[in-house]
Amino acid sequence: MPSRKGLFIVLEGPDKSGKSTQARLLIEALVARGRPVLHTREPGGTGVAESIRKVLLDPKLKVSPVAELFLYEASRAQHTTEVLLPALKEGVTVICERYTLSTDVYQGLARSLGLKTTGALNAVATGGLKPDLTVVIAIPEAEFRARDKSRVLDRLEREDSAFHRKVRQGYRDLARRAPRTLLLDGTRDAGDLHREILSRVERRLQ
Amino acid sequence: MPSRKGLFIVLEGPDKSGKSTQARLLIEALVARGRPVLHTREPGGTGVAESIRKVLLDPKLKVSPVAELFLYEASRAQHTTEVLLPALKEGVTVICERYTLSTDVYQGLARSLGLKTTGALNAVATGGLKPDLTVVIAIPEAEFRARDKSRVLDRLEREDSAFHRKVRQGYRDLARRAPRTLLLDGTRDAGDLHREILSRVERRLQ
Repeated sequence: MPSRKGLFIVLEGPDKSGKSTQARLLIEALVARGRPVLHTREPGGTGVAESIRKVLLDPKLKVSPVAELFLYEASRAQHTTEVLLPALKEGVTVICERYTLSTDVYQGLARSLGLKTTGALNAVATGGLKPDLTVVIAIPEAEFRARDKSRVLDRLEREDSAFHRKVRQGYRDLARRAPRTLLLDGTRDAGDLHREILSRVERRLQ
Repeated sequence: MPSRKGLFIVLEGPDKSGKSTQARLLIEALVARGRPVLHTREPGGTGVAESIRKVLLDPKLKVSPVAELFLYEASRAQHTTEVLLPALKEGVTVICERYTLSTDVYQGLARSLGLKTTGALNAVATGGLKPDLTVVIAIPEAEFRARDKSRVLDRLEREDSAFHRKVRQGYRDLARRAPRTLLLDGTRDAGDLHREILSRVERRLQ
């Protein structure tokens, strides 16, 4: 793993689980304590990654499951080199929405490409950079459907409900056995979740 | 490896080695013999791959070496699923300019990412599909420079000459130890090369 000083925190979970809300609350709290924080997300965060994101989300292109996996890993490689590592090296706390666990869940489990394959590609893309803390926000089926109605759907979001069930189950299963991972119920009050996340982050910062 | 009936022939070699000329001559000869032939190239050949190609060749984007590797593999995965496998399954002879050997040479050797890494990613991208015959057209330094002058250079072509030396040497080294591979001197007369390639292909077709 490359040498670094900053704390690397990842927020994971299905679409609409509340990752962005928790990221914002956590950042506000850390900045109020005088800590410089970088907020970023995958896929995205670099010119290259934004170009890749357009390919991934273009409903006219039928990206094959394996090509999709490689595109996510390309974004991750660029984002790791260009965004994550320089910030961590400077001692900045990094809050990243989605990282390798998303690939394990979506491509490894839900698209059945296998955790061995996603694990191997994740290792190449990140050069071995692992989060100090991963927070997984899980949400049950009913809650997901209720939040889904008010939004325009992109390609991934239009996938059938069996796929999304695998995703939600996958997050729970992998979160339970992953190291340095906090699994939370996303139907709880956002303020409650925030206090639990902040408490865990503060322990890691000490 | 997926089941297939068509012959899969790959033309490899550095830029300006004469791959396209030999592809054209070979296709003309095979079509004249009544064989259906599909001519394709990497990266490209699909809507997804053409979008990726634009990202790779955009001089404004500084794609990291690892991200570049993943982007080539994404193109390959899409191209294999969408173009190569359906044609081979139909019994069509496929002539493809560049395939996994290019990744071993450019990313594995010249960019020093390692043949173990490129080999693992190639296997995922192709699902194990291997050429029946790979023709490597090698060209020496002086010839390369002479052919280089008349063209507008894209990003890869602007790389320093040390990089290109590694590429040319890499093709020779890997071609010598790869199975089902014909290594040819690209400074020979194009008609001569064509007759040697055609003779080898006809043996494979019998």
